Amino acid sequence: MESYMEMLARLAKEASRTAAKLRTDDKNRGLLAVADELAAQQEMILEENAKDVEAAQAKGTKQSLIDRLALSEKRIEDMAEGLRQIAALEDPIGEVLYMKTRPNGLRIGQKRVPLGVVGIIYESRPNVTADAFGLCFKTGNAAILRGGSDAIHSNQAIVRAIKAGLRKVKLSQDLVLLVEDTSRDVVNEMMKMHGMIDVLIPRGGAGLIANVVQNSTVPVIETGTGNCHVYVDASADSGMAADIVENAKTQRMGVCNACESLVIHSDAAGEVLPKIVTKLKRHDVEIRGDERAQAISPEIVPASEEDWGTEYLDAIISVKIVDSIDEAIAHINKYNTGHSESIVTKDYDNALKFQDEIDAAAVYVNASTRFTDGFEFGFGAEIGISTQKLHARGPMGLKALTTTKYIIFGNGQVRK
Amino acid sequence: MESYMEMLARLAKEASRTAAKLRTDDKNRGLLAVADELAAQQEMILEENAKDVEAAQAKGTKQSLIDRLALSEKRIEDMAEGLRQIAALEDPIGEVLYMKTRPNGLRIGQKRVPLGVVGIIYESRPNVTADAFGLCFKTGNAAILRGGSDAIHSNQAIVRAIKAGLRKVKLSQDLVLLVEDTSRDVVNEMMKMHGMIDVLIPRGGAGLIANVVQNSTVPVIETGTGNCHVYVDASADSGMAADIVENAKTQRMGVCNACESLVIHSDAAGEVLPKIVTKLKRHDVEIRGDERAQAISPEIVPASEEDWGTEYLDAIISVKIVDSIDEAIAHINKYNTGHSESIVTKDYDNALKFQDEIDAAAVYVNASTRFTDGFEFGFGAEIGISTQKLHARGPMGLKALTTTKYIIFGNGQVRK
Repeated sequence: MESYMEMLARLAKEASRTAAKLRTDDKNRGLLAVADELAAQQEMILEENAKDVEAAQAKGTKQSLIDRLALSEKRIEDMAEGLRQIAALEDPIGEVLYMKTRPNGLRIGQKRVPLGVVGIIYESRPNVTADAFGLCFKTGNAAILRGGSDAIHSNQAIVRAIKAGLRKVKLSQDLVLLVEDTSRDVVNEMMKMHGMIDVLIPRGGAGLIANVVQNSTVPVIETGTGNCHVYVDASADSGMAADIVENAKTQRMGVCNACESLVIHSDAAGEVLPKIVTKLKRHDVEIRGDERAQAISPEIVPASEEDWGTEYLDAIISVKIVDSIDEAIAHINKYNTGHSESIVTKDYDNALKFQDEIDAAAVYVNASTRFTDGFEFGFGAEIGISTQKLHARGPMGLKALTTTKYIIFGNGQVRK
Repeated sequence: MESYMEMLARLAKEASRTAAKLRTDDKNRGLLAVADELAAQQEMILEENAKDVEAAQAKGTKQSLIDRLALSEKRIEDMAEGLRQIAALEDPIGEVLYMKTRPNGLRIGQKRVPLGVVGIIYESRPNVTADAFGLCFKTGNAAILRGGSDAIHSNQAIVRAIKAGLRKVKLSQDLVLLVEDTSRDVVNEMMKMHGMIDVLIPRGGAGLIANVVQNSTVPVIETGTGNCHVYVDASADSGMAADIVENAKTQRMGVCNACESLVIHSDAAGEVLPKIVTKLKRHDVEIRGDERAQAISPEIVPASEEDWGTEYLDAIISVKIVDSIDEAIAHINKYNTGHSESIVTKDYDNALKFQDEIDAAAVYVNASTRFTDGFEFGFGAEIGISTQKLHARGPMGLKALTTTKYIIFGNGQVRK
């Protein structure tokens, strides 16, 4: 007997065959129809969302989580606007990356095509539902969405509106499938559907991501944690260094591209660290440093070994003093999570050395780590920021939801 | 306490930092030095290989497996020549795929870099040892090689020669690490080293690949099985169709890009199937068909449902008669393994339709499926043929062993 998840996967696979054939025009019409439908069904969505919010409040859920869960007219309009923006983006599907003629006359090309069935596993933010659908749909994929149980009424309402929009333009409603049974067994089954789901993308906290990475037999795109560093080199402009550290740490706390750790060359520390401390203290940032950092500023409290590897996502930063760029690079490569790292320097060789030797998705010279973002990079959309090395690394735009196929045109060639 | 595998992974990670910094010149010198050393140490390698072959014979191992295991002067010279060929290939590392200047002045580029530590899990063919080292080394990666226990003496000897070659040109011997403990526990541990090994590539039979896919938490590139089809359309040239089917089935049996199943439009079957049967029977191919195929030729024996999904790797082919290209596409998409599929047709629309709608790594019009191969595609090397959709799909050249990093040049930019 087919299980519930097997049924969803089968419907999604069938829908994905249709999706792959859609023209860009049809996809854009679909996105605009869904955007209109979300706006039109705003009242229904807010009513359903209120049920989730009430249940969460009754359970004593933290206010920060309720803030993520709660929708408003503005948030629904933002979802609709997000879909309209996706409609305006160039369709990556169908691009032929190259085509060459081989000596035997075979014309061999590589063409960008959809992945097929994309599974997204996420937590309590209902806006991911519309966003993930939009990105998958624009790239010709069918989406299986498994949101958190806390947001189930909201997600059902949003998916109902999406399906209504698809129906209006006569497209398959199975292009978006919500996993309505939010039990743990069902998500475990989903992670084992190798061959039925083409890729799983977890979007959420470190625990969720680790669970998917550890247990999935379906290929995973890991989006993730950022223990990001700024290294202030001996030759750095101290004003620029202080501005960049302030921005990277405080422009938005709690995001993966925020700076969590500062590494300073001992030749620069005496001048630059007090400036940085002054700026960070204005934002009430707790500064935890090694002994040499503490000796420079009384505001700095002791850091433990654990601090070097911690992504605080909070108003805390660690500071380490080093005696060379090699020591800085070794420290960063030991503790970082492969996300975003920046050097502030005036030295040409050190700028290149840092970019060459740091192992991370995005390596900056003289800029804030906060720019690691699909919109800031000019992709016009973002699926997430990949911290793995396979398939996609760094901010992922629409292309991360595609694969390629080789297309070969012959006229009777056989292999000798 | 660090385990044996953890030690290997740590040494490999350290070596990978060095490897990433090597210039192409140094890598090519290393490859040539290793090639010379393999040739120079031929006698030692053959002596060690003889131990494995004797042990295999004593165990009563099948002759076909002993043929894969046994080395000869010629096979060792082929290994050395393979490394020289890799030296001659263009180095993919360092290529900047694009670089753009953003409105805020940030110059953002995407650069090709090594993956880091590549783990290869393979079976009894010792030539994979030299080949996998060469491909990983040219792409600036450190390689952890886990060959089969049957080939352990051969692999130790080959790795000894590789390390001697690396030593001669003063390169780290940890760039290649052989897992000398071939117990199951150690390979299981290897598959769980997420974060320590960057990618695992299984090379071998379906059982090995399935085991790695099911159990690895390290990202896997799945190379694989090929249940490849040739579809003969209504309008096909019957001579061309018969030539292509003969080549795809018989030019080399037992390989993943060989044709295992034939699908024929009913309008063409009466003319083309007898021609195909005649050709295949010359190669003693057993032909298993549905009832309509059996009605056309008495040489055709009944096929069961299981035949449609079977990769024979042998002198057997299945035949199905369909009434439309849509039926052919649905049949192939149901039973194929996403490897290589071919249509023989004179019809323009059907050629494009087949290429658009078939879900496979390589989709051919009027050519044999046997061309799916890194060398035939002009890559100059082949790591394997990926049947997954993430990261690499189809024949994999050196680029499949690389990832990218974003490099960002600023002059003080902070995020607003």
